[in-house]
Amino acid sequence: MKGNCVIAQSGGPTAVINSSACGVIQEAFKHPDIEGIYAAHNGILGVVNEDFFDLRKESPETIEGLRTSPAAALGSCRYKLKTEEDYKKVLEVFIKYNIRYFFYIGGNDSMDTADKVNKLATRTGYEFRAMGVPKTIDNDLACTDHCPGYGSVIKYLSTMVMEAGRDTEALYTTDTVNVIEAMGRNAGWIAAGTALAKRDEEDAPHIILLPEVPFDESKFIARVKHFLDTIGRCVIVASEGTKYADGTYIAEQKGAFAKDAFGHTQLGGTGLYIKNLVEAQAGVKARFAIPSTIQRTGIHFASLTDSEEAYAAGEKAVELAVQGVSGKMVTLVRDNSSPYACSTGTADLADVANGEKLFPKEWITEDGFFVNEKFFAYARPLIMGEVDTIIEDGLPRFIRFKRIPVSL
Amino acid sequence: MKGNCVIAQSGGPTAVINSSACGVIQEAFKHPDIEGIYAAHNGILGVVNEDFFDLRKESPETIEGLRTSPAAALGSCRYKLKTEEDYKKVLEVFIKYNIRYFFYIGGNDSMDTADKVNKLATRTGYEFRAMGVPKTIDNDLACTDHCPGYGSVIKYLSTMVMEAGRDTEALYTTDTVNVIEAMGRNAGWIAAGTALAKRDEEDAPHIILLPEVPFDESKFIARVKHFLDTIGRCVIVASEGTKYADGTYIAEQKGAFAKDAFGHTQLGGTGLYIKNLVEAQAGVKARFAIPSTIQRTGIHFASLTDSEEAYAAGEKAVELAVQGVSGKMVTLVRDNSSPYACSTGTADLADVANGEKLFPKEWITEDGFFVNEKFFAYARPLIMGEVDTIIEDGLPRFIRFKRIPVSL
Repeated sequence: MKGNCVIAQSGGPTAVINSSACGVIQEAFKHPDIEGIYAAHNGILGVVNEDFFDLRKESPETIEGLRTSPAAALGSCRYKLKTEEDYKKVLEVFIKYNIRYFFYIGGNDSMDTADKVNKLATRTGYEFRAMGVPKTIDNDLACTDHCPGYGSVIKYLSTMVMEAGRDTEALYTTDTVNVIEAMGRNAGWIAAGTALAKRDEEDAPHIILLPEVPFDESKFIARVKHFLDTIGRCVIVASEGTKYADGTYIAEQKGAFAKDAFGHTQLGGTGLYIKNLVEAQAGVKARFAIPSTIQRTGIHFASLTDSEEAYAAGEKAVELAVQGVSGKMVTLVRDNSSPYACSTGTADLADVANGEKLFPKEWITEDGFFVNEKFFAYARPLIMGEVDTIIEDGLPRFIRFKRIPVSL
Repeated sequence: MKGNCVIAQSGGPTAVINSSACGVIQEAFKHPDIEGIYAAHNGILGVVNEDFFDLRKESPETIEGLRTSPAAALGSCRYKLKTEEDYKKVLEVFIKYNIRYFFYIGGNDSMDTADKVNKLATRTGYEFRAMGVPKTIDNDLACTDHCPGYGSVIKYLSTMVMEAGRDTEALYTTDTVNVIEAMGRNAGWIAAGTALAKRDEEDAPHIILLPEVPFDESKFIARVKHFLDTIGRCVIVASEGTKYADGTYIAEQKGAFAKDAFGHTQLGGTGLYIKNLVEAQAGVKARFAIPSTIQRTGIHFASLTDSEEAYAAGEKAVELAVQGVSGKMVTLVRDNSSPYACSTGTADLADVANGEKLFPKEWITEDGFFVNEKFFAYARPLIMGEVDTIIEDGLPRFIRFKRIPVSL
C-alpha cells in the first residue's frame, strides 16, 4: 500500500528511544511503498496540530546519529486523547496527509492511542496500518520480556550506585549512609536493577526499597543498623514509589514537598525523606542523591544490547507494516537467558494497553530488602555492551533535527 | 634517606584521587631508599590510630587498577588535628614506624596538616619529608592552575546536563524547566564548568547560578521567562552555594530541610528550592536533580587529561621527596592553553593551606547568569579524553585493597 508514514515518540524519554526511531526511519527508507517519511513533532500533539517535519530532508548522518543521541529527538509529550472526537480529529489529519502508516514509540498510553486510531480507521474503511514500538524505562509493559530503555537505565544507575558507593566506603567516618533515589512510581524494576552493582558483600547497594514491599520503618532502621554494625556504612537505593502498607507513598505522607505547584503529588522527596529518617533514627550522618531524569538519558554509558534491541524493534515494526500487519506492538522475546538470545514477536496493541507487567514477588528476598538470583539472571544480559557515543571536545555530540515542515 | 613512607588520602573523594595514589605508589616502588610503602587507612585518622596497611603486599594489578577506580581506595576522612598534642602524636607514630616520607593527597586542610607535621619534625630534628598532592573537585586550591579532580567532575556533570537537557527539550510541553544542583559550597567552579555542555543557543544549560553572584529572585525569574518565551524551556544549573546578597544560602534561609540531624546547615535543598520557586513564580512545571556525590566519582566518564595530571602530581611528589624536597605541594602549571600544555611545579604547603583560588568575577557574564569565553578557554582543555575503565558483565570493575596490616 502506497502512502506516507508518520513516526512519533511519546512519554518519558529514554537513552535509546531514538535508536528505535532510527530503526523505523532507516527501514522505512528501504520500502518504495512508503513515500513521505514524516515525524510528528512532540508525539500525538504533532498529529493533532499538524506539526510534521520531513525526515527525508534530514541528512543520513543525522538519522544515524539518533543511535547515539538520548531523549526523544522527534519531541515527546504526555498529551492524552480523550474523546471520540479527539480520535476522529487524528484520523482526519492522517487522511488529509495521506498517512497510511503510523509508528508510535511509547508505553501503555501510546499503544492505547495507536489501537484506537487503528480501530477507528478500520471502521471508517480507511486503509491504514498502526504499529507500536515499546519504550519505557519502567519495564512494566505487558506481553514483552523487557522494554527498550530498561537495560540502559539500570546499567547507568547501577554504575552511579557503584561509584557513589565507593564514595561512602571512602568517607564512612563522616558520611556514613547514602540514599540514592531511583525512578519507578509503581514498580520496583529500576530500583531492583541496581542490585547488579553488587558483586561482593561489601558492595553497594546494601538495601533496596521497592514499591512492592510495604515500608516498615523499624524493620528498615534495624537493617540499616545491621550494616553499620558489620561494615560501618550503608548505601540504600530507594524507589521513588516506596510506600507504607496503607498504600500512601512515604514522601506523600510526610514529605514537606509532597505537592507541587499544581497540587499534584510529587514523589521527588523519597530520597530526602529516607535520609532524614536515617539521621533521626540511626544517629549517623546521611547523604542523598536524586538523579531524576539524568538516569534515563545516559547515552554515554547506555547498554549496547538495549540500543540494538530498540533499533530492531523499530525496524521490525516497519517490515511488518509493509507486509500488511496492523494493530500490533513489536515485542522482545527471550529465547534463552544464558547464553542470552532475544528475538522479536508481536502482541495486540489492546493487550499491551490494558496490561501491566508487575515485578515478580518471588524475585524479592525474604526480608524484602533485596532481590535474588532469579532477578540477576533476568537482568544481567540486558546491560551488556556499551553504546559508542561520538565525543567532540571531551563531551558527547548529539544530533538535532532541522525540522523542515511538511506542507500539503 | 632510607626509611618507610606513608601515603594518605583526605577529604571528599574524586574520580581521580586514586590515580594520584597510583602515581605515588608506582614511583615509590622505583626508589630503593623507600623501604616500607604504607597506606594510612582513612587519611590522618589512620596515622593517629596506627592503622596502616602494606602496599607492597598488594598485587601490581590492584595498584594499577587505582587508575580506573573512583573515590579514595586508601580510605579518607574529614578529621582535623587540632592541638599541638595532636601533631606530636602524629610525629610520634611516624618515628615509631620509621616513616621518613609522608605523601598527603588532599585539599587545604591536608596541606595544613602536612605543613605542621613537617615543621614539627624539623624543630624536633627528625629527618622527614612531607609532600602534598593536590586534590579537590572544588578547584579552589591556591598556587595551582587547576586541581586534579576538577576536570573529571565538570566533564561528567556537563554530560549529565547535556543528556538531561535533551530530556527537557523532548518533553517541554509538560516538564518545562529542569534544575540540576551542582556541588560547590563556596565557589562556582563546578557549576560554571557545566557551561561546556552548551555548544548552540538551544543547548542546556540556559542559566547557571553561581555563589559569586547574589541571587536576585525577580531577575532570575525574568531570565527564566525569557527562555520560556524564546525556546519554550529552561535548564538551570544551580550551585548548592547559591546565596542572597546578605550572604545567606538560599536553601538555608527558606528550605524546609535547612538543618540536618546534627543542626548543621544542609545545602542539599538548593535544587529543590529553585524548582519550587520556578513553579510558583513562572507557573510551569519544573523538575530537579541532585546528583550529589555521584558527580564527583564518575570514573566511567572521567577526563583522561585529569587522570594523567593526577597521576603525574603523585609521581612528582615522590621524585622530589627522594631528591630531598620537603614542605611543598606539587602544583599544575599551565604552559599554554591552545594547544594545551601543562607541567608540574611546587608551592609551599603553608601558601596553599592559607590561600584560596576564587572564581574570577571577570569570567561571569554581565547579567550574572552565565560565564564567558575566558572561562571556556580555561576549562575546555581539562576535560579532554576519557579514562578507559575496565568493564566486566556490563559494569565497571573497581579494585579494593586486601589491607594487610603493617606490624612493627
